Amino acid sequence: MTTPLQTAAPQTSLDPAIVAQLKRDENGLFAAIIQQFDSKEVLMLGWMNDEALGRTLTEGRVTFWSRSRQEYWRKGDTSGHYQYVKSVSIDCDGDALLVQVDQVGAACHTGTPTCFEAGGVLPAVSGTRPVE
Amino acid sequence: MTTPLQTAAPQTSLDPAIVAQLKRDENGLFAAIIQQFDSKEVLMLGWMNDEALGRTLTEGRVTFWSRSRQEYWRKGDTSGHYQYVKSVSIDCDGDALLVQVDQVGAACHTGTPTCFEAGGVLPAVSGTRPVE
Repeated sequence: MTTPLQTAAPQTSLDPAIVAQLKRDENGLFAAIIQQFDSKEVLMLGWMNDEALGRTLTEGRVTFWSRSRQEYWRKGDTSGHYQYVKSVSIDCDGDALLVQVDQVGAACHTGTPTCFEAGGVLPAVSGTRPVE
Repeated sequence: MTTPLQTAAPQTSLDPAIVAQLKRDENGLFAAIIQQFDSKEVLMLGWMNDEALGRTLTEGRVTFWSRSRQEYWRKGDTSGHYQYVKSVSIDCDGDALLVQVDQVGAACHTGTPTCFEAGGVLPAVSGTRPVE
């Protein structure tokens, strides 16, 4: 690799106040948690850069940055499984977003309603809050 | 830096089937979405490596890898704001976990119940599903 890794904010139409609030990884990306707005089910986790967030905030539909294909990916353009934006929040240190959406059809490309049903449950020991 | 970035699975006590299912970033990490099990509120997003996940699956409490401090961080050890594990799911491509917990006190170090209240809502144009 002959160019330095991108860490500075890229040129976008995004509000400068939001640009300043975001904390990007070595590839200029941050995580976007996608949650169904009414059932509160967590549907998937995707990745965005500044431009993908700018599009998501202005178009009423969610756009990701695809790490595997290295291109913008507006959810539903090929599958019909649109994600209509209801609200977008940023976390305390600016490296994660919570995007509440109205999901049409399956959120997962495997056809399951959420990507976590596709991957499955891992065996875990439960913890319990002590009785006070 | 004289050693290559870690991409291979490290040595842990984690089940080899889970080790094979995980997809790690350049730093050996994957994202963990933390959700309150009963209200379904998304509390925060943290990062884990294989060892942090192994501890989370066996100890009944959530352990992260702190990227800023470069150390394991068992939630609540200093704050008392424990996260008791209820279930752990992995997503379709193995780079994100959904951890349902019973959160004691505030999930965010700023004192707000979730980290997304601390960061705040971004101005977004809403999208609406067409009437069928």
